[in-house]
Amino acid sequence: MTLKTLTAESAANLDKELMSPEMGFSIDQLMELAGLSVAQAIHKVHPPSKGANVLLACGPGNNGGDGLVAARHLYHFGYKPSVFYPKPTNQPIFQGLQKQLKALRIPFVDDFTAALKETDLVVDALFGFSFKPPVREPFDKVLEAVIAAKKEVLSVDIPSSWHVEEGPPKEGELGAKFMPEYLISLTAPKPCVQWFKGKRHFVGGRFLGQEFAEKFGLDVPAYEGVEQVAELEVGAKVEKL
Amino acid sequence: MTLKTLTAESAANLDKELMSPEMGFSIDQLMELAGLSVAQAIHKVHPPSKGANVLLACGPGNNGGDGLVAARHLYHFGYKPSVFYPKPTNQPIFQGLQKQLKALRIPFVDDFTAALKETDLVVDALFGFSFKPPVREPFDKVLEAVIAAKKEVLSVDIPSSWHVEEGPPKEGELGAKFMPEYLISLTAPKPCVQWFKGKRHFVGGRFLGQEFAEKFGLDVPAYEGVEQVAELEVGAKVEKL
Repeated sequence: MTLKTLTAESAANLDKELMSPEMGFSIDQLMELAGLSVAQAIHKVHPPSKGANVLLACGPGNNGGDGLVAARHLYHFGYKPSVFYPKPTNQPIFQGLQKQLKALRIPFVDDFTAALKETDLVVDALFGFSFKPPVREPFDKVLEAVIAAKKEVLSVDIPSSWHVEEGPPKEGELGAKFMPEYLISLTAPKPCVQWFKGKRHFVGGRFLGQEFAEKFGLDVPAYEGVEQVAELEVGAKVEKL
Repeated sequence: MTLKTLTAESAANLDKELMSPEMGFSIDQLMELAGLSVAQAIHKVHPPSKGANVLLACGPGNNGGDGLVAARHLYHFGYKPSVFYPKPTNQPIFQGLQKQLKALRIPFVDDFTAALKETDLVVDALFGFSFKPPVREPFDKVLEAVIAAKKEVLSVDIPSSWHVEEGPPKEGELGAKFMPEYLISLTAPKPCVQWFKGKRHFVGGRFLGQEFAEKFGLDVPAYEGVEQVAELEVGAKVEKL
């Protein structure tokens, strides 16, 4: 099977179109469903019985927002999430997501390295498809710590530091050896998944209709039942759209 | 087990507080999760293999909005939903929800009685906890048709025409004989569930933290795994909060 993948430009156009006056989605809706799918993927690879401490490293953009939504659902699923969110965004949705977490007494940690030691799983929600290398501070130190910690990692949409289309950084650069165990692509995989050699790959964000998917050359993922995630083959061939 | 139930006033206060500046939820988020839970309850009682045609009767308020969200998720779950929505609301979220459904080519039907004949299941998303009797037109005719059709019905939050606290209308009034097979209470059951003698009762809307629930005297429902609905006992004793 060939995975149809969205370039950064196509992914941005797709999101723009979902939120256009014709399609009528709000960022609140899309982020809620994306974050819920992240939490469901975590439940599949690492149910709370395997260790309930999950540390979510959230970046400054929408990828970080997906992480914030996931943290809330993880709490409701029985996890003990904690959140590292050093560059909070001022937009209402991000403000709201932080308040929802604080109302649940979910800790926002300051010392990422200390928090890493306590965690059973790391969620890399630092950068998504709009990321342009290099990784800037303070996220360079964060990523270095994640790589050094040798904890299991689930990356949201893109393994952070990877180029959306060209994959991992060159040998010797930060992130060259970053290989998360798990990846959840949002809406559709991105071309860099061809370098993903982790254990399991999912897709989430169950809101693409057949007609809309076809417009972007995509297949609607084979979601089952009421699942918000579908599993994809690791190592599948990739087609760039 | 005693079911702790929210009066109309407490339910309104709870919603207001969830959307307060302190808690930070948006109507888009809450309606998305409520509607998703409605669709998941439908999948439990009536999977698409039992007949994929679902007719959603959507009222003018938030209950109708939950129905619109559910219609979209039902489509993605493999159903063929159709929507009756005679009194559309102008607020942005309702406009957006309608556009999302139209983009999926989900039919909005004009002739409710004709659509009823074709359907395998009816979703009663006419009125929620802010309903005050009597049922006004055109919804009186809609409810009469639902009762006459003898199709299976799932009611969202409250069986429409029932008083939130006092239950079914008096003998001889419209709705006195209305008993849906299935009920999904949103956030928490309402006192009228003590008159519910259908087959299965669920609760949905998985966003109440322990502390917040306690503030309203509620128990957090016993959701399992990543489920967005939990099943409650039909005929349980009721405590009014």
